[in-house]
Amino acid sequence: MKVGDKHYRSIWFNSETGRVQIIDQRWLPHEFRVVDLVSRADFAASIRDMWVRGAPLIGATAAFAMAAEMGRDPSDANLDEAWEELNATRPTAINLRWALNEMRELLRPLPLGDRAKAAHARALEINDEDVERNRMIGVHGLEIIRQIAAKKQPGEVVNILTHCNAGWLATVDWGTATSPMYHAVADGIPIHIWVDETRPRNQGALLTSWEMNSHDIPHHLIVDNAGGHLMQHGQVDLVIVGTDRTTAHGDVCNKIGTYLKALAAKDNGVPFYVALPSPTIDWTVKDGVAEIPIEERDDNEVTHVQGKLPDGSIGSVQISPDGTPGGNPAFDVTPRRLITGLITERGICEASPEGLAAMFPERVIS
Amino acid sequence: MKVGDKHYRSIWFNSETGRVQIIDQRWLPHEFRVVDLVSRADFAASIRDMWVRGAPLIGATAAFAMAAEMGRDPSDANLDEAWEELNATRPTAINLRWALNEMRELLRPLPLGDRAKAAHARALEINDEDVERNRMIGVHGLEIIRQIAAKKQPGEVVNILTHCNAGWLATVDWGTATSPMYHAVADGIPIHIWVDETRPRNQGALLTSWEMNSHDIPHHLIVDNAGGHLMQHGQVDLVIVGTDRTTAHGDVCNKIGTYLKALAAKDNGVPFYVALPSPTIDWTVKDGVAEIPIEERDDNEVTHVQGKLPDGSIGSVQISPDGTPGGNPAFDVTPRRLITGLITERGICEASPEGLAAMFPERVIS
Repeated sequence: MKVGDKHYRSIWFNSETGRVQIIDQRWLPHEFRVVDLVSRADFAASIRDMWVRGAPLIGATAAFAMAAEMGRDPSDANLDEAWEELNATRPTAINLRWALNEMRELLRPLPLGDRAKAAHARALEINDEDVERNRMIGVHGLEIIRQIAAKKQPGEVVNILTHCNAGWLATVDWGTATSPMYHAVADGIPIHIWVDETRPRNQGALLTSWEMNSHDIPHHLIVDNAGGHLMQHGQVDLVIVGTDRTTAHGDVCNKIGTYLKALAAKDNGVPFYVALPSPTIDWTVKDGVAEIPIEERDDNEVTHVQGKLPDGSIGSVQISPDGTPGGNPAFDVTPRRLITGLITERGICEASPEGLAAMFPERVIS
Repeated sequence: MKVGDKHYRSIWFNSETGRVQIIDQRWLPHEFRVVDLVSRADFAASIRDMWVRGAPLIGATAAFAMAAEMGRDPSDANLDEAWEELNATRPTAINLRWALNEMRELLRPLPLGDRAKAAHARALEINDEDVERNRMIGVHGLEIIRQIAAKKQPGEVVNILTHCNAGWLATVDWGTATSPMYHAVADGIPIHIWVDETRPRNQGALLTSWEMNSHDIPHHLIVDNAGGHLMQHGQVDLVIVGTDRTTAHGDVCNKIGTYLKALAAKDNGVPFYVALPSPTIDWTVKDGVAEIPIEERDDNEVTHVQGKLPDGSIGSVQISPDGTPGGNPAFDVTPRRLITGLITERGICEASPEGLAAMFPERVIS
């Protein structure tokens, strides 16, 4: 999407330098930095330390990492080592394992001499597929926004709440939850976005707000506590969030706090949709609360907050007293009973085993 | 309660200087500052700008303010002016108006020459009554904790989640939600507190954590997003929160985000109690969502976070991009259907018109 007047993806292959480049998201929105990823350590750190984040982008980055590794050493041993090291970087987003498996299954049968080229081509393809899937999520999601707008007065704003960043920075382009928003704007529907700040890492405040600013989409930043109150007072027409892993039964694992917004949406009759590219479905898992491992991150993320200091430099402040420990589960699971529908690249379906199976019959594990 | 080895209240009359003193809570937990309140402007600023906060403490401060004003000018005109200026400082906490009315109704019939002395005596009494009410909330709330502990293995910890600061710093002493915790510790029940940080102003991180540290009560600071996940996984036995205003029908207005925790508690079968000193009941109001005015605060509180910089000084960081506005409703309303019970100074009752009327029959407005 747009950064100033220029179109960017969040990750791309620079054919002049032969290197993969990313937007280092740790500095947004205060600084826009592009960095090269070269070594396996670079790629692993970029995922683990969240220079890139968001389930689809993590998958795309892992694909490029495998391609770079095959260029360096196409052996079976390196294929497995790279798979292992990259797979261990983040435990929750299923797209990581999906992309690594895609690459390994493609490469394993190939002669060593063919692996680098095939890996590079497939990595590019995985990236392009991600863009197309997210575009189609926007096409389908637009219909939901159109239907809400049709029930309002002409010109009346549709208020959409989103949590975390399921924007283009979480994918290769378009975003998942944000793709319907861009499509609505292009369609001439007036929208306004409530952006949850999404503590502890503030992806909403830092990234989603920045994306909305870049495309001049009206929005307000709110604390994660505020959404329920806004729904009680009719100020939210629709919730759209992304997901890091969705089970074959339709339970949605997403950034911590999503479950609370789903409860509030249910309590107030607000439609709650999840934008879901199919690689984010874990067909091996049914009960999300019981089965999905939840990443526990450093408590420094809870006790400290990073941002821009008055002098323009980036710094962090400690909000807690010395001696107070933090607890930091990074994701939660929203049970399917709270979800109005899943917006996939093939269309909108019910969050249920039947709904997902009807949409992706070839993927069902019986 | 304790600060180091010394016992403090959050507000007190210093009989040596003849001045009211408070703990200036804007600097906690990083600095412990005591300041004098002298002029009406001092008192009004202390409430409006949250040097003191918390519904009961706001009431206690307003009572002292009226007493100080009567010492300066006991006229009817000044009585009304002081009432008006102080009443306008914060719109949501009903204790403010309760304390101002208590004082005005006492003072209005008195000869001018008697007002200063009577006002001073009543302000001291209002403070002492607050302490005693909160102590009794602890006595009654302890029974809830005892019953939960009785169902566990001997020595197994009771996990209690609380939102915002309904601790002694929000009252004159003991706190409301925290009073049962102190009583449980004194009773030998092992407890652990999940402290919601409570964005945007982080009263949980800054104040409740500090209170827990001062009394060596085991606790973890968590982001406001985390409570639902913890409840899904059996890690919360009980929620206790405070309130800024509770309606005659039992709806509870409290710090923004309380409603989301109540929804999660309901969804997971976790008991959700509100610690409620009777001056916090607004007998004139029934439907909390429809009738209680919700304070909208400066969006700077959302876009910036204050804390301790690495050099030990207090500063703030901007978390949002330039150009992103914030929305900042300060409170929300939890409907009574989500509340297990109200812990008052007279005992525990149902959050309902009948429950409150049975507990405080002399206060009911028919």
